[in-house]
Amino acid sequence: MPTQPGSTRGRFEELSEQECQELLAARGVGRIGFTGPGGPAILPVNFVLHGRDIVFRTAPYNLIATSVRGQRVAFEIDEFDEYLQSGWSVLAVGTARFDDEDELPLDRFTKPEPWAAGSRPLYVRIADATLTGRRVYAA
Amino acid sequence: MPTQPGSTRGRFEELSEQECQELLAARGVGRIGFTGPGGPAILPVNFVLHGRDIVFRTAPYNLIATSVRGQRVAFEIDEFDEYLQSGWSVLAVGTARFDDEDELPLDRFTKPEPWAAGSRPLYVRIADATLTGRRVYAA
Repeated sequence: MPTQPGSTRGRFEELSEQECQELLAARGVGRIGFTGPGGPAILPVNFVLHGRDIVFRTAPYNLIATSVRGQRVAFEIDEFDEYLQSGWSVLAVGTARFDDEDELPLDRFTKPEPWAAGSRPLYVRIADATLTGRRVYAA
Repeated sequence: MPTQPGSTRGRFEELSEQECQELLAARGVGRIGFTGPGGPAILPVNFVLHGRDIVFRTAPYNLIATSVRGQRVAFEIDEFDEYLQSGWSVLAVGTARFDDEDELPLDRFTKPEPWAAGSRPLYVRIADATLTGRRVYAA
């Protein structure tokens, strides 16, 4: 139903690019959205922020690796409190590029370490992403 | 780095369709992935499961409404524990259809109620979605 005067529902607020950056820097898990052979997909990955770039690791022949190279992709982080009906989300949209590990100026403390076992030698970088975000406040 | 023998990293397990359904039924917030005029996007929405369909509300002229009608979309829920490096995710892929509220056999207790103020008279239904999911266990 449309909102009535006196509604107790909350309100949206756009986040600044700076706020989006800070939220990305504070998180370790996000979700990449892309189009694969079977259609659209959203998959979680753990990542690090390297400068302004989002970097994560994956296996060279999985769905992500075979779908995203050179493609525009979406990357999202969020946090919600279902009880309070409040939270925020950040959306990064950029082009996915594959990095050679040897060329990465990441030291071992800042490398994204996959959680699960298995070889994931491929580094995917989302560079020059456009950041937008919003926060919904409880009423 | 590739996983070494003796790695302490965890393992993946595929979820059954039944498990995916149960996880969807237990959650209230998910993320829709689609391609809009500005490229790929992932946006959080609160939703209800109506039978096997994912239903959420949106405003008729926003990015979601103007992008997804009749399109294949992705819908994702997940939960992760960054400290334990474990969690799960469910991905639903299906076609987004617009419902007339009058045709919806949803009563007011099962209708998805938007958190934020603003008119959201449009019901979007993702029907006949293909469900896949996975769990990552800590080592």
